[in-house]
Amino acid sequence: MEFPDVHLLSAGTALPGAPVTNAALAARFGMDALWEQWIDTFIGTRSRHLALDLDTGERVGGLADLATAAAERAIADAALSPSDIDLVVLATATPDRLMPTTASVVADRLGIDGVPAFQLQSGCSGAVQALEVARRFLLDGRYRNALVLGGDVVARFFDLTADLRRVPPTELVGFVLFGDGAGAAVLSTDPAPGAAALRSVFTRLVGANREPGATLDWYGPHERAVRGTGASEDYKAIERHVPDMAAEVVKELLDDAGWTGDDVEHLLPPQLSGRMTELIADRLGVGGRRVTCVRETGNIGNGIVFFQLERLLGELRPGERAIGVSIESSKWIKSGFALEGV
Amino acid sequence: MEFPDVHLLSAGTALPGAPVTNAALAARFGMDALWEQWIDTFIGTRSRHLALDLDTGERVGGLADLATAAAERAIADAALSPSDIDLVVLATATPDRLMPTTASVVADRLGIDGVPAFQLQSGCSGAVQALEVARRFLLDGRYRNALVLGGDVVARFFDLTADLRRVPPTELVGFVLFGDGAGAAVLSTDPAPGAAALRSVFTRLVGANREPGATLDWYGPHERAVRGTGASEDYKAIERHVPDMAAEVVKELLDDAGWTGDDVEHLLPPQLSGRMTELIADRLGVGGRRVTCVRETGNIGNGIVFFQLERLLGELRPGERAIGVSIESSKWIKSGFALEGV
Repeated sequence: MEFPDVHLLSAGTALPGAPVTNAALAARFGMDALWEQWIDTFIGTRSRHLALDLDTGERVGGLADLATAAAERAIADAALSPSDIDLVVLATATPDRLMPTTASVVADRLGIDGVPAFQLQSGCSGAVQALEVARRFLLDGRYRNALVLGGDVVARFFDLTADLRRVPPTELVGFVLFGDGAGAAVLSTDPAPGAAALRSVFTRLVGANREPGATLDWYGPHERAVRGTGASEDYKAIERHVPDMAAEVVKELLDDAGWTGDDVEHLLPPQLSGRMTELIADRLGVGGRRVTCVRETGNIGNGIVFFQLERLLGELRPGERAIGVSIESSKWIKSGFALEGV
Repeated sequence: MEFPDVHLLSAGTALPGAPVTNAALAARFGMDALWEQWIDTFIGTRSRHLALDLDTGERVGGLADLATAAAERAIADAALSPSDIDLVVLATATPDRLMPTTASVVADRLGIDGVPAFQLQSGCSGAVQALEVARRFLLDGRYRNALVLGGDVVARFFDLTADLRRVPPTELVGFVLFGDGAGAAVLSTDPAPGAAALRSVFTRLVGANREPGATLDWYGPHERAVRGTGASEDYKAIERHVPDMAAEVVKELLDDAGWTGDDVEHLLPPQLSGRMTELIADRLGVGGRRVTCVRETGNIGNGIVFFQLERLLGELRPGERAIGVSIESSKWIKSGFALEGV
């Protein structure tokens, strides 16, 4: 069965507050210049935004605020209004609440109603999962315009009282790797000038016999972490697995589209950190411009693909090709997509 | 575009421990016979299962345990093996962790790998959302068998130290309304003896200008509930809105299928509580047998539809029709599906 093309019309993003530099983080936690240098060298991320007042420790806004702002930009950029949206799919690892979903809250704030509104619980491949689910709903022509969102707010896991000299390495990266933010995109069965055709998109769990590379826990109202930050990151496992998985995704996307690496003008690599993004991208055998933002935004989990898409759409010309790759390390999901300017 | 039928091959369920009767709950919280009578009269739920040791307050197992057990039953009942499953969709309001997803963990335990595995964050309409998403992936023939799961474990919100005489009514119902459990179903493009064709399925957010009827909060490792149980339930709003919404869903399902209420042999009504289930079902204008379980299981959120489906499949004969309705009160989602024995 042949399906119609689905088009990416626009993308919009939102970040909380001002950038938090490595120097600011070091100062806040009483760490020295050596620590700051460690972030620069081994992580390669220079700044991130946090939905948190670093002085008081108070949370500043939540995912619904960021996702609503991003969605307003994406919908406006697609020259649509909220009433044109007939499907909402939001992906996050850190919803504001367990119920109601942030997807429902954002839809309500935007004035979107009477449509399916899904929320995916997901790690770094959530944006691609959301694109994949939305695309499936657009294929039979019953739905026309889908608002796809993704984002994360990790500020709730930020323990400003932590002594970073004593935090184990698996948790230490959590303080420097991530950033808060959200993004949105509009997918449509109708093409438009400046849009990109979504040639393929897939996600695939490959967690068999692999321990989770990242974990994030939530707590009930009467529970408390026995110890630690509620988050862990097996950076070594990630360094070991993500480059190979990314290469497998690229191969599959190219084979699927009938392209070679030289045919691709824009590469959206996985963005765990500034340093790892470069290491991975170097090995993918894909030419073209690298569309990245992680050095300035940090790893925004379910949001970061939208930051890449926003940059891509600003530069993608008709006939140009782009591929995007995201690897979820929590229980290992490979994901990717191929776009072509129309 | 005409799509092939998608078939519900089987359903399986799992409950933790022994039933907790109203008398046992009353005894545990030091409440009297009048309170027990209040549950019987106004809630109409006689027992539920909890993933919690009521004596010690310790949690006993989690959602992944229950969902894995339910999935094993559903897959075996469909005469399939885990390697036949090429899509996993799990719905819950209460995942075991934020990352990795319970969907990924369950897939891994079952030996399912190399397939898309989605987890929907959802309230009571989550089972229907999961059926809807899975059906969309089955429509183009690339995927053949989908494992759809749903369940909830609310034990983490159960404060055994609470003085129920002082708990406000919006939170009190939380102690008696819900139960823990999980269910699973296998959807397939291939029909089989005893299967039901999924004639239609839809979910629709209708939260505009409505306050959430239910809320559930999670906490970070360093946060704690300022007060209360982290959960609230606007039982009055639910009593006001759910019957009308259920009637709207039934009307739409019947119109869509070209059926009348008299054509339906099996009704799977929303199951907030034993009493409300009967009140709602009485008003739906649909004849036939009512397929319910809430009096014995409590409201199992994302799981309860699977308990109904398991009972239905045991009795549905070829040519018989069934409709199911679920209303999510958290931010108001109408959902329903129509099945026909094949």
